[in-house]
Parts: sequence; C-alpha cells; structure tokens
Amino acid sequence: MHALSHLFEPRGIAIVGASADLTRIGGQPVRALNRFGFRGAVYPVNPKYREIDGLRCYASVADIGAPCDVALIAVPAQAASEAVRACGAAGIPFCIVLSAGYRETGADGAALEAQLRQAAAKTGTRLIGPNCQGLLNLTTRLYAGFGSVFQEPELLAGSVSMVSQSGGFGFSVLMSCGARGIGFRVAISTGNEADVTTPEVIEALIEDPGTRIICAYIESVADGRRLMAAGRRALAAGKPLLVWKSGNSADGARAASSHTGSMTGRYDIYRAAFRQSGIIEIFDIDDLADACRAFLGGILPAGPRVASVGISGGAGILFTDRAIARGLTLAKFGDETNKVLRAAIPSYGSIVNPVDVTASVFNDFALLTDVINAMLADPEVDQLAVMLASLPGEGALRSARAIREAIARHNKPIMLAWVPSRKRAEAAYALLDEGHVPIYESPVRVAEAAVKLAGFSAVRSAAPPAPPPNVKRITLPAGGGPLDEVRSKALLAQIGIPVAREVVLPADCEQPAALDLQYPVAVKILSRDIAHKSEVGGVMLGITGIDGIAAAIRSIRANLKRQRPEAAIDGFIVAEIITDGLETLIGVVRDPSFGPVVAFGLGGIATEALKDVAYRVAPFGIDVARAMIGELRAAALFGAFRGRGALDVEALAEAIARVSVLAAQEERIAELDINPLFVRPRGQGVVAADALIITKP
Amino acid sequence: MHALSHLFEPRGIAIVGASADLTRIGGQPVRALNRFGFRGAVYPVNPKYREIDGLRCYASVADIGAPCDVALIAVPAQAASEAVRACGAAGIPFCIVLSAGYRETGADGAALEAQLRQAAAKTGTRLIGPNCQGLLNLTTRLYAGFGSVFQEPELLAGSVSMVSQSGGFGFSVLMSCGARGIGFRVAISTGNEADVTTPEVIEALIEDPGTRIICAYIESVADGRRLMAAGRRALAAGKPLLVWKSGNSADGARAASSHTGSMTGRYDIYRAAFRQSGIIEIFDIDDLADACRAFLGGILPAGPRVASVGISGGAGILFTDRAIARGLTLAKFGDETNKVLRAAIPSYGSIVNPVDVTASVFNDFALLTDVINAMLADPEVDQLAVMLASLPGEGALRSARAIREAIARHNKPIMLAWVPSRKRAEAAYALLDEGHVPIYESPVRVAEAAVKLAGFSAVRSAAPPAPPPNVKRITLPAGGGPLDEVRSKALLAQIGIPVAREVVLPADCEQPAALDLQYPVAVKILSRDIAHKSEVGGVMLGITGIDGIAAAIRSIRANLKRQRPEAAIDGFIVAEIITDGLETLIGVVRDPSFGPVVAFGLGGIATEALKDVAYRVAPFGIDVARAMIGELRAAALFGAFRGRGALDVEALAEAIARVSVLAAQEERIAELDINPLFVRPRGQGVVAADALIITKP
Repeated sequence: MHALSHLFEPRGIAIVGASADLTRIGGQPVRALNRFGFRGAVYPVNPKYREIDGLRCYASVADIGAPCDVALIAVPAQAASEAVRACGAAGIPFCIVLSAGYRETGADGAALEAQLRQAAAKTGTRLIGPNCQGLLNLTTRLYAGFGSVFQEPELLAGSVSMVSQSGGFGFSVLMSCGARGIGFRVAISTGNEADVTTPEVIEALIEDPGTRIICAYIESVADGRRLMAAGRRALAAGKPLLVWKSGNSADGARAASSHTGSMTGRYDIYRAAFRQSGIIEIFDIDDLADACRAFLGGILPAGPRVASVGISGGAGILFTDRAIARGLTLAKFGDETNKVLRAAIPSYGSIVNPVDVTASVFNDFALLTDVINAMLADPEVDQLAVMLASLPGEGALRSARAIREAIARHNKPIMLAWVPSRKRAEAAYALLDEGHVPIYESPVRVAEAAVKLAGFSAVRSAAPPAPPPNVKRITLPAGGGPLDEVRSKALLAQIGIPVAREVVLPADCEQPAALDLQYPVAVKILSRDIAHKSEVGGVMLGITGIDGIAAAIRSIRANLKRQRPEAAIDGFIVAEIITDGLETLIGVVRDPSFGPVVAFGLGGIATEALKDVAYRVAPFGIDVARAMIGELRAAALFGAFRGRGALDVEALAEAIARVSVLAAQEERIAELDINPLFVRPRGQGVVAADALIITKP
Repeated sequence: MHALSHLFEPRGIAIVGASADLTRIGGQPVRALNRFGFRGAVYPVNPKYREIDGLRCYASVADIGAPCDVALIAVPAQAASEAVRACGAAGIPFCIVLSAGYRETGADGAALEAQLRQAAAKTGTRLIGPNCQGLLNLTTRLYAGFGSVFQEPELLAGSVSMVSQSGGFGFSVLMSCGARGIGFRVAISTGNEADVTTPEVIEALIEDPGTRIICAYIESVADGRRLMAAGRRALAAGKPLLVWKSGNSADGARAASSHTGSMTGRYDIYRAAFRQSGIIEIFDIDDLADACRAFLGGILPAGPRVASVGISGGAGILFTDRAIARGLTLAKFGDETNKVLRAAIPSYGSIVNPVDVTASVFNDFALLTDVINAMLADPEVDQLAVMLASLPGEGALRSARAIREAIARHNKPIMLAWVPSRKRAEAAYALLDEGHVPIYESPVRVAEAAVKLAGFSAVRSAAPPAPPPNVKRITLPAGGGPLDEVRSKALLAQIGIPVAREVVLPADCEQPAALDLQYPVAVKILSRDIAHKSEVGGVMLGITGIDGIAAAIRSIRANLKRQRPEAAIDGFIVAEIITDGLETLIGVVRDPSFGPVVAFGLGGIATEALKDVAYRVAPFGIDVARAMIGELRAAALFGAFRGRGALDVEALAEAIARVSVLAAQEERIAELDINPLFVRPRGQGVVAADALIITKP
C-alpha cells in the first residue's frame, strides 16, 4: 500500500483517455497541467493521438517509461477497469477515476464499480473515485481534473486543504473561499469512494506538512469511527478539521443516496460524533471562509472571555448578543483597564464591555490605540473584537498599527468587523493582511469566529476523556429477537444497573399470596410476544394491596383477550413503583456509519413530544455521560428544582456509561431500551423500571 | 406637523455649525452636499465664516431667505436647543441633530434632551436625533450627515430604504449591501429618537413612492404597537419590512441601554410582535442583502413548494436540507415534467427533486433549458432554485437565457446559486442582473431567500386575523396587589374560563362536614400573604376522603407555622383534581414597549425546565391562540398521543384568546397567571386549577 500523501505531489501524471479536444473531460486536465505551471511531468495517454497540446501522447501507460505516480482515468465506465489494471501493472500507485456511471446508477453500475475495485486491489494501485472530479494542488500547480476550477490559473496557494464527496460543489466552495482571500493547498474530490475514503484523505492531510487547516464536505461516511479517529488525530496535531455535512433532512438524505449511492446515517449521530472527536461543524460557505480566516490568524484564545471595542455602539451590541448566545462570556475588566477606559472615553461612550469609544475617535486616534492595548493586556480578556464600522484612510491605518502591535505584544487574537471599500483603506488592509488579522464584514460573523477559536482551544486543552468503566461480559441467550422485560432487566442488573424490586407471578395466577414488596406496585404483563406493554392495556399502576393485584391481573387478561388474543402470557410482573424519581430513558441504536450509539433523554410523555435526546458513540466514560445529561434542554430538572433537592446525576452518568460499554462489547445487542429509568434524589441512585433488549442471532 | 416624507427630498438644506474644516462633523456634510451632486440648495450657517468650500456661509438661519426644509445641527449639545429654536422660528420644518451628549450620558444629558424636545415642540419643527449621524437620499444625492458613508460618492441609487438607531453601524451595513449590488434610496439614522421615532420613519417610507423595500436596525422601540401597526401597513402596501433587532441578550440589552439611554423590551416579545405584524426578522448583513436581492426580483411564489435543479448533486442536497428545515416543502413533479426529466437526464443524475442534470450538461446545454422550463411550468412548483456551481462562459450564458425566458413565461421566481468569477461569465451576469434574477453564492443562502419570499407571500395572502372574542368587563377590587386564588378564579369564571369545582373551608375548620365534591381533591391554603403555595407546604394533593381533608389541613397548618408563621390564614380551599388533563399555563405580562402580552406554555415541571413558551401581543382572536399552541416544541402533546385521543385545543385556544382580551381591556391587571390550566380530552374543555391576578392601584 502506498502512503496517500504521495498522491498530493506526484513526479509525473498520466491522463488515460486524454482528448485532443481540450474542452472535454479528457482534454481539460491536459491543458491545465500543461499550461498552468505544474512542476512535474505530464503524460497524455491515448492510442489515437501522437501529440496533444504540444505534449507527446503515449499509446499506453506501459510506454511512459519514467516516474509516474498518478493516473487520471477519463475513459468510459466500461473501459475504466482495464485502464486501472494497466496502470497498476505499470506500477502507477494512484488512479483517479473521473468517469461516472457506477454505483450511483443502480445495480449494473455497482457491478462495474466492484470490477474497478478488484482491478485496483489485484494490481496494488489505489483508487480515487470513481465519479469524481479530480485533484488540485496549488503549491505544485497540479490541476488534475475537470470542471471550472481547473480553468482558473489564478487561484491562490495557501495552507487550507479540502476533501469533498461532491466534486462540482466542493470545488465551487473552494473558488468562493478563494475569492475571499483564502489560499488552498490540496483539494480532492472523492466521488463514490470505492477505495480511498474521506477519513483516509484526512489522515493524509494531517501528515501533510503544507496543510494547516483541513476542510471536508461529506454526504455520508461508511466508516464513521475512522472519521472520529481522524478528528482526534487532527486535534492532537493542532490542525482544525472543519466538516460540512449535508444530506441531513430525510429528503436530503434520499438525494444524497442517489448522488453517490451511499446511505447516510442519522444527522444527530454525526453531530454527536463531531463533538466527541473535536470536529468543527460548518454550515455554509461564509462560515467555512470565516473559520479558515480565524484559524489562519494563528493564535488561539486561552479561554471563553471576549471583549469588544468599537467606534459605534451598535456593532458591539450585535457581537455581544451572538457571543453570549453561543456560550462565550463577556470579560469583566480589571482596575488597570478601567482606569485607562475612564480616562480615554467620552461620557456618551461606554467604558464597560462592549466598549464604545464613539465617533470621538475621529478627533483622536491615540485613544483607540490606548484602549485596545489596555483591553488586550487585561488578564481577564482572552480575545478581542474590534469594530471599526467603515472607518477609512488614516484612522484605519492607525488602528491597524495599534492592532498589530497589541497582538505582537500580548499574543492574543484580535478580530475585526470592518467594511470600508478597499481603495479607501489600502494601507490598513495591507498591514492587517500581512499579519493575518482576520477581518469580517459583520460583528455577528466576528462572534461566530470567536466561538470557533474558543471552542477549538477548549477541546485542545481539555483533560483526556475518562476511560469507559469496566463492565463484566454477559451471556446473551442463543438465537435472536426480543428478550422479555424480566430477562432484559436481569442482564442490566448483572452489569451494575439497579432494577426495580419485583416478583413474577405465574401466568395462571388468580389470587397471589402476600408479597415481599412495598406498595404501591405496578402489575405488568410478561409476554415474549409483546414489546410495548402499555399500548395493549398490559400495565396497571398505583396498586396498593393484594386484592388490587388480583384485580389488575384480571383486567390485563381481559385487555389482552380483546387486543392481542394470540399473544402468549408468560406471567405477571408485580414491581415496586418509584415515586420520587424523574423518568428518563437510555437507548442503544446501531448506526450504519457509527455502530453502537447511546441515546439518553427524558422519559415519559416528554420522550416523544419533546425529542430532548443526547447521543454519543459508544463506549465512553462517565465525563461524556455527564455531558449528555447537561446537554438536554431539560437539564435543569436534574439540579435542585422547585423545592426538591438535586437528583443523583453521578449514578445516572455511571449507568449511561455502563450501557455504552455493554453496547460496544456485546455485538449481538441490536437494540436496547431502558424506559423508564428513574433518577432518584442524590445518594439514592437510579432504578430501571422497564427494559427491552433485542439481540441478533 | 409636517409630513415626514418631505424630509427625504428637501429643496434646501442648512448646516448649522458648519465648519471650514471639511473633515470635521460640521464640515463633512458641507463638502458632500456641495460636491456630490445634490439637487437642492446648500446653506452653511456659522457667523464665523463668509464662505465655506465655495458656498456662501450665513450668519444665522434667519438670513437664508429661501426655501429650506431641513437643518443639520452640528453645534455642541449645550447650544443645540437654541439652534433648533432658531430653525423653528425661521420656518424650517425638520432639524437633524448630529450632536451627542444627551440622554446616553446620564441625568444631565437627559435634561438637555428634554430642552431640545421643548424647543422643537414650541416652534413646530420636528427633531431627528439627537446623537445621530444624518440622512442620505441617493436618488437626490442628499448626503446630509457625517461619517465614512458621507464620503462615498459612488454609492448606488435604488429602491431599498433604511432606518437605523445606530448611525455608524447602520451606514456601514448600507455600504456592505451596496458592495453586494443593492441600491438604496433613503437611509436615516435616528439616534436617541427624542421626537421622530423608527415606526414613524417606517410609516413615511411606506408612503414614499421611491421605496420598495424597508430595512430597520433597532435596539429598542418605545412604542412597540406603533411598530406593529407600521408592519401591517407595509404588508398591505406590499413593501417587505426587514427588521434587524439587537440588544437581545441581557448583556446586549444593557449595552443598548447605555448606547441610546433606552430600555429594550424582551426579545421573545419582539419576535412575537414581528410575527403578528408581518415583519421579516433579519440576523446579519448577508441575510439583509440576500433578502433585498430576493424581493427586488419582484415575483412572489404562490406557495411553499420549491424545486431545485443543478449541475452538481451536492448543491441540491444542501438546498433541500435547509429548505425543509425551514418549513418549505419539496415539490412532487407531475407526469409532464417527469417525462421531460427522464428523457433529458442521464442515469447517473437524478430526476427527482432535487434534480441533478450532472456535468453532462457540458456536452448539451439545451438539456438544462428544457429541464428548467418543464420544472417551472409544473403547477406543483412555486419557485425554483438553479444550482450552477461555478459554470462559466457560454454554458453560463445559455443557462442565463433559459432562466430569463422561463421567468418571463411562467412568472414564478427563480434564484441561483452560482459562483464563477465575474470576468469568466460577464455576459451571463449582465443578463441576469438586468432581469433582477437573484444570485447567491451558496445553496443554503438560496434556501433562506426562498423561505423569505414564501413567508412574505403566505402572510400577504393569509386570511385577515379573526377578531378577538367579546369578553365582558369585570370589576377589579380597589387598591393594588395580589388577589388570592379564590378571587382570581372567580374573575376568570366571569370571563368564561372554567375553573375547578371547589369549596372554601373557614380558617378555623377542624373536621369538615361532607362536601359536594368528587374525590380525589386537593387541599390548599388560602392566604392573602402567600402567592406560591406549594413552596411553603401549602398544597396537599390526591386526598380521597373527609378524614384525609382534615389531616391535610392539620399538615398545612403545621407547615405554615414552621415556614411562614406571620402569614394570615384566610381559609382552606378543597378543590376537585383533574386527572385526565395536560398541565399548561397562561400568563399575562406588561412589556415596556408592547404593553399587555400573553404567554402560553406547558405547565408543571416543564414550565421552568423547558421554557417552552409562546408569546403574543394582546388582544387577539382564536386563530392566533391556535398558532401559539402549535408553536410549542411540545405541540404534539395536544394531538392524539400514546393511545389517548386529542385534547380540547379549541377550548384551550378560546381560553387563551379570552385572557388576551381581558389583559388588553383591564389596564389595572399588572400580572396574571393561570397555572395549571388543565386541557382535557376533546369536547371536555379546560379547567383552571389555580390562578393569581396582581392589580395596579
């Protein structure tokens, strides 16, 4: 296997199916590679031609006889396998298959794609695509693909790299970001990902010394855990990994699956995975360009405390609104800073954060310099937003100087909201651009960028996650299907999750003897055929005596006879009722991309109506479980609330973490639901009142 | 009083406090008005000079002796009242006070502002500002103010007008939008709004024939109901009113109040008011520019059904994700359309919405024309998004022609996501710009714009709101303060809100006689001193017999003795308990900007923990009340749910609407809370189980 990083800087590149018509798919890369200054050798391959665009054209890749690290395949889908085989035989380590007509077209295409994959595997060459648009490396002027981006020789080289599952859209995003001044290094379109996948490309970009920031546009990833691992590695390497995920609505997912032939997993699980692995989610082009600009500034804030200073109050207020809404905090200045602000700012300005020096700055620009310096020097301030509205000319230049000096002195990020026309502030722009000081048009965008910097910094400096707890292995019964409530709860009890005290009465029980249980109790049907007991009248609550139990059994029997006459009755569960607990639920689902995932949320009527659920990819430790609890909209319910004390969040977190380990180590568990899990007052633990485990054979 | 619309097109303008230094506040407007082609007369006023910038300078406004409709006041705050008086005496109808140092600086400044207001009121001139940056009319080249926007002679004239409470920020937004090709007509900064307020300016802009779209940046409005009325008038006039509201976080509101000296009302109430009056909320500069571009297209969609077609699948998926998330629906094509799509699109594309014609379009541009036409002709499609990625040159031009023709033929909106560099697609850009076809860089922005068009269209064509119900007037007891539960519920019963059946036992009751109530019942303390009964152990629930009632009374007495020994005991309420209802709450608050506002949300533990509450400005009819119920995240709970039938939403909506009328017509009600209000199964109504009314004296 060849290291993917060699793909980015080939010594020579072959274009198989090269066309003499330079506007066609096989012609565009010949033209671009030949004319835009590619540093390596270019080998058009097509037996029909002797020469294309002044370059010698080879009859086959076998004839090249010189180092060639990449082949672009631009032949019809039916002929691509043979082309890949020939490249592999010629020792070319990477084939980028531009051709379309594979998995995305249905079963016949999928068969063609399988052939392609086999051809590559047999000869040891790696495949990029098929159904992709190629590879760009702006450092080495490698324009290896087709589409409009491969006709733009003026794209800026830089240190942002991109991998995209959508060629046309991904490269158009690159062009938009380029127009906003972001320079790119490598951009690659992975198409159907028959062999090389997005996570693998990300891994290679983490190793690539020329790449500082990695962007990915994804519709789905087959191996979600590899994406997470790549996220963690990027984090460790200090390279922000910005991921734009689409195909998130039901209609969008359906369209994504017809686009590349893959199924997408659930969006909320992707988002959880991003959070667990330090991946920064992106939602639009501006968002991506803004984030790149922020990270290219090169300084991370030490914490979440922001300050803002501006020549107009409005901008500071907008910045503050958004920063607060996104979880940052407003810095409270120390005495030193307050002294400087009081001395410098007129009474109609504001000396508290957000600071407003007002238009009076037009009469004295030294004021702004002093204020910026004092604010950035304040140990309470982690990063600073400077709002210059449309300040032009000399004032802008003096502000730019003050900003550069303050950054150099204090090594904290400053970002600007500033919108003068370039020609009215050329010198200031030049100075700020040279220092990679991020400039945004709107205070709202500054706040969003500040959030990204602070978030990345926080994740970078966070303590390593707690290890998942040790959970003993259990023995699942042979065969597949649902386990009944009693057996499901017994398995949970084995892994240390407390279950309600209960007694099982036989199916033919008429009048039970005295039971060693505390009233009130619930009486529930026990039946291998019934998963959702309460929907068929199989649950009676709040029963306070032995006669009540007998009556409840009679009612349940009558309900079942009416609603589910065919269902086997295996017995009746009489269980103690928890009266002092909050109803929650823990669930396990298996996601096609991420495997076992734990869901935690409020139980009872809240579950379905409020959809207040947190997800995490299993397994994980108690800290992650605590974060899930804190993430619910209803998180306040777990604290002291309306006169009652706080609930046993620690026991709850322990239970969630234990379930996550169970889900990860028992692969035969297809689904698991604990609902309700009662969370009792602090010190009194949790109790699973009902549970359902479904196993695979 | 002079009609404000005359302000926008003055025949002559005086600059009081004109400065010979053209960079100063009193000099900038002289220079701009003199040099940028203003169509009226310019009168610098300052006894110190004979001439400024080649213009005759007058010693006082009395000397002008020619029609002068506006005076800019650029003298120090202390001198401004006198200047305003002189202008009023000279018959100048409008004074724009640029000076700062008023209410925003504290009590002394507030006194100065009061003087200013009096000076204007006495002489009949209207005040704009103080603490503002002036007025711009790009149609008449009126550059009447200071700051960087007044140094930009190249700003585009157009039909968007703007009013902003923040001068510096508002004008910088205008410049940003201008750089995105949006042309403006009038822009005005209102500063402290000592006299002329934002809603009044909006009213004038609705009357202004040159204005097609109105934008407002606000931090607070003193008269929220006038803003709502302006919104309704703008809607009736077919002019979208786009409002950007800041000062929404607690810190932001504090900063806003120090910015202009005004208090902001609660943000969620503003948002409710926007919804009630057809105002379109804006959240950022791009958002504003994008919305302007969409509305300048000039065609509204008939409904919420969108379709998308593109040359790259990725863009269509992103558009779809966002459109669906924002409540639009994906059009399902008719047979005609399907036939065209099947014939035109290759197998690796997508013939379902979002349609993907793929890069094959490069080989046959007629394909795109056919597809666009068929999709727009389809009666199932209300508007169309076309995703052209970075398509340049001839392909772009042919697409642009197809788009123009399709719009002309079908009179439905088409919007584009398209990002080629301008120079690679000049002819296409020119054609699309000429037709006012909105172009965005990202499919996400296209979706947001489509949402705005569809939303405005829906509100425009909605049936007029139902009238508020007739509610009989009640007699509130004299004096102010809280009314106890029994009196509060009695008043509610008078306006037709059912209350729980109950009996009040005397304070000294030991052993009650048989009661005509259905068990279970609740026993609650009745005390003028206790507003929150359950927090002091004053409520016992689930009591099932007369002895239980006696015991409950004893417990409550004991609890009170311990927790609130000073509280008077006025009696004990024994009330039937509703067991088949969902707990909700209805509240009334008085907002400083909007007056009486009704809040509706889930009751019980959900209230505080979930903050799932809908607001509306009172009074309103049953349709608005229904919308409030539907707006809750937990709205599903009111339908059929988990085996039980739907709840009595109609009775609930009626109760909410009745409370809204009560709140509006009884001005002495300071606060009202019905909590819980039980909503019972359909046909069985609602029951107020507890209530608290607080009156003003």
